Amino acid sequence: MVKTLKEISELIDGELLGDGEIEIIGVSGIKEAREHELTFVANSKYLREIERTQASAIIVGQDIPYDGKPLIRVDNPYFAFVKVLELFAWRKRKTTYGIHETAIIGDNVQIGEMVSIQAYTYIGDNVQIGDGTIISPFVYIGDDTKIGNETLIYPNVTIREDVEIGNRVILHCGVVIGSDGFGFASVSDRHHKIPQIGTVIIEDDVEIGANTTVDRATMTNGATIIKRGTKLDNLIQIAHNVVIGEDCCIAAQTGIAGSAELKDRVTMAGHSGAVGHITIGADSTVFAKSAATKDLPAGSYVSGFPAENHAQQLRIQASLRRMPEMLQAFTRLQERVTQLEAQLNTTDDKSDDS
Amino acid sequence: MVKTLKEISELIDGELLGDGEIEIIGVSGIKEAREHELTFVANSKYLREIERTQASAIIVGQDIPYDGKPLIRVDNPYFAFVKVLELFAWRKRKTTYGIHETAIIGDNVQIGEMVSIQAYTYIGDNVQIGDGTIISPFVYIGDDTKIGNETLIYPNVTIREDVEIGNRVILHCGVVIGSDGFGFASVSDRHHKIPQIGTVIIEDDVEIGANTTVDRATMTNGATIIKRGTKLDNLIQIAHNVVIGEDCCIAAQTGIAGSAELKDRVTMAGHSGAVGHITIGADSTVFAKSAATKDLPAGSYVSGFPAENHAQQLRIQASLRRMPEMLQAFTRLQERVTQLEAQLNTTDDKSDDS
Amino acid sequence: MVKTLKEISELIDGELLGDGEIEIIGVSGIKEAREHELTFVANSKYLREIERTQASAIIVGQDIPYDGKPLIRVDNPYFAFVKVLELFAWRKRKTTYGIHETAIIGDNVQIGEMVSIQAYTYIGDNVQIGDGTIISPFVYIGDDTKIGNETLIYPNVTIREDVEIGNRVILHCGVVIGSDGFGFASVSDRHHKIPQIGTVIIEDDVEIGANTTVDRATMTNGATIIKRGTKLDNLIQIAHNVVIGEDCCIAAQTGIAGSAELKDRVTMAGHSGAVGHITIGADSTVFAKSAATKDLPAGSYVSGFPAENHAQQLRIQASLRRMPEMLQAFTRLQERVTQLEAQLNTTDDKSDDS
Repeated sequence: MVKTLKEISELIDGELLGDGEIEIIGVSGIKEAREHELTFVANSKYLREIERTQASAIIVGQDIPYDGKPLIRVDNPYFAFVKVLELFAWRKRKTTYGIHETAIIGDNVQIGEMVSIQAYTYIGDNVQIGDGTIISPFVYIGDDTKIGNETLIYPNVTIREDVEIGNRVILHCGVVIGSDGFGFASVSDRHHKIPQIGTVIIEDDVEIGANTTVDRATMTNGATIIKRGTKLDNLIQIAHNVVIGEDCCIAAQTGIAGSAELKDRVTMAGHSGAVGHITIGADSTVFAKSAATKDLPAGSYVSGFPAENHAQQLRIQASLRRMPEMLQAFTRLQERVTQLEAQLNTTDDKSDDS
Repeated sequence: MVKTLKEISELIDGELLGDGEIEIIGVSGIKEAREHELTFVANSKYLREIERTQASAIIVGQDIPYDGKPLIRVDNPYFAFVKVLELFAWRKRKTTYGIHETAIIGDNVQIGEMVSIQAYTYIGDNVQIGDGTIISPFVYIGDDTKIGNETLIYPNVTIREDVEIGNRVILHCGVVIGSDGFGFASVSDRHHKIPQIGTVIIEDDVEIGANTTVDRATMTNGATIIKRGTKLDNLIQIAHNVVIGEDCCIAAQTGIAGSAELKDRVTMAGHSGAVGHITIGADSTVFAKSAATKDLPAGSYVSGFPAENHAQQLRIQASLRRMPEMLQAFTRLQERVTQLEAQLNTTDDKSDDS
Repeated sequence: MVKTLKEISELIDGELLGDGEIEIIGVSGIKEAREHELTFVANSKYLREIERTQASAIIVGQDIPYDGKPLIRVDNPYFAFVKVLELFAWRKRKTTYGIHETAIIGDNVQIGEMVSIQAYTYIGDNVQIGDGTIISPFVYIGDDTKIGNETLIYPNVTIREDVEIGNRVILHCGVVIGSDGFGFASVSDRHHKIPQIGTVIIEDDVEIGANTTVDRATMTNGATIIKRGTKLDNLIQIAHNVVIGEDCCIAAQTGIAGSAELKDRVTMAGHSGAVGHITIGADSTVFAKSAATKDLPAGSYVSGFPAENHAQQLRIQASLRRMPEMLQAFTRLQERVTQLEAQLNTTDDKSDDS
């Protein structure tokens, strides 16, 4: 794809400074960019990078002066840049619509318009698939599952029976939705499986990373729910009956245990976790490798395991680093006190003697 | 499925209190239950929930009084409830028996009776598949692998060559059995692959969660073994030559390193681990995010990394929270001692002077 | 396969001691070995095992005396043993060359010689596949991807579009290469997807474990890179724009966050991690369950979170275990000082009185 700088400037409602006829064929970071590519700088800290970059033009904010190098000036350079990235990303998606002859489609399946059901897909009975949805090779969709519009399902994804997936959802390769929750009734040391017959609801605009697993709820009316706009990274475990609020952001390899609830806009960093049956308040952040073990109020900012207020954790971390020397100092102080006691008793004795 | 309360009561050997002709169409938790659903309460703590529930009937223990609401009284309400869940779960499994025309079956494959080998499955040479076993779409089974009776293999599972899977095993979506162990001979900084030519043995009644990986053993007679009745959650790593005992329960994202051994009935919580070549004694528990780093006697109850006795860890955690204030108090105490020393020297001087 | 001890001895350039006509049919660890199997001992610590083993012959170093039991003496017994393992491992790989009739091959695909493209594989347009490469069932390869020679791709692997895979690479079951990086522009609490249009480069002799995920870079010229000879275990997350050096060794369930760089020969133990945008120097080691949070110089040896020098961490761990008793001792010391102060004031008073 080739676009002129003028065309791009119009797309992002920017102020064009310099030659609008320059042809742009790609977008890159400021260090990696080559000729005929567009880049961006978030703020004036990167002025030196602007001089050095080989990019043919730069998207900048209001604080960057025009110095001969072609610029597009906007209010939010980062957000504008994402729009341009989207423009060039279309090149990548060359979807063939229709149902491939090798796709296996069950009975009573409802399929919308402009759908791409690709080679070697398996779709069970009574499945509904909305308009513009793409199902890639080696995807399995179980009976009675509903999938919304413009949803993108990458290869080797498994969606079990009786699950609901919304609109504009993205499921990356290897994702599993609706696997059995981990529930057993243990009697005399034997674990008896509790059938997991609840469902999973993935709302609109959710994105789920590669090889992440989302278990189904245990009982008839139960559902594991991931709400609108939430983004999950790779290799995450979402256990049965978990509820994740809107616009949450959960980094790779995090685990959320059964029946835990995350309210809206919670951030969980990599390798973090939450134990079962707790609630994490809205706008909270759980740090990397930490795990929440109790209910947290809205706006919490916690780290460690068990996770505590992060500022307090930093103080503890700092204390911890001083521990070895402190223990030595403590031993010395004990000796000094012992000596003082000895001395004072002598003094006392003297006093008594006197 | 519709069952009368009387039919269900007989199934679970319960004492029916109230109208046995009530029709039950599903099972739910006490809060989610609607009319024509059955629920349960584990103990009398939930008396208030019994008043509020919309369930048409409740399975209860001996300690709950009959108050007009239909009850089925049993000794273990939870276990009885699981039986009813199983009854209603059958509705979900609508399996078609036989071999789908798209299944690829190798030479010399032995297939039992009432088997379901579904669309787009690949079964290598000399494979044995027992009676009543279900192989879902996109499942790969390598040459010379044996699978027992009534085993359920979900979509996108890969079972490599020369592996043994027992009876009534459940492998959830995306599971990998028999991948190469992580073994290299490092010579002059280069890592040379050690071929992994051992096997994996999964015994009867084992359940393995979505996207969990179980590596094969290194050598000819070696085996990575998961013994009868053990349950593994999602995204777990079981390395080569690991032996996991009977009736263990391992939560999501746990990792067991090479040649470690877990004896019977070990519990590992989420994100926990064991380093290689250690033995964890029977009936031990390793807490979440903890890792065992040395042999543990039977009945151990450990947390932290390196994992130590949990009670001791709790004391350390409590101490830790007091560290920042304690360090301040320590500095003050040092000052006080210094002052005492100064004062005492003055006193001494005075004494000497006197 | 049957080989005489003499044949094996010649293969590994060893000194044969004992009957060279003994027939060897397999290789095993010293404890598991049976008759007609070969084993090895790394050093003289295992002398007692040599007496006990049922193996028909043993590969040993220069320090083991000949005592009647057939031996092959070499400089590096472990490395020699790996060569023999490789010999016997060939039995396992019984590959059929050619393109299976069910394989779906896109337009303009270039396929080398002696290639095995197996049943139910999907290969997009413009893909290049080198000589001797094996593509197993249920593997998806996206458009414009290049794969080198003698590369082995196990079942259920997904390789997305526009990715480069080198020679002699091994991708284990369930691996995902080129999934979207986790990048969003957050405006007014909504997360807007940043299209991920960069690539992934997997260099020669890399091995990637089951269900591990490697995300593609964000921008046109960007690449997530895993360099020559590096070995990744199972269930690892490699985020977008990460660069991993040559001959690194990364254990299971480790996570490397976006744009982090590992120089050559870095070792990361199980469940470890690195935060984004940091550099870990060559020949460094990060311990299990630890995470690097800042740039580390070459040869670092760190543990904990945030990861610090391991020797220092061990001192902190040791201090930590003494904390509970130390806090009690501290309280007692405070009392002693208070008493001293009281006593000294009395003494002072006395002195004053005197």
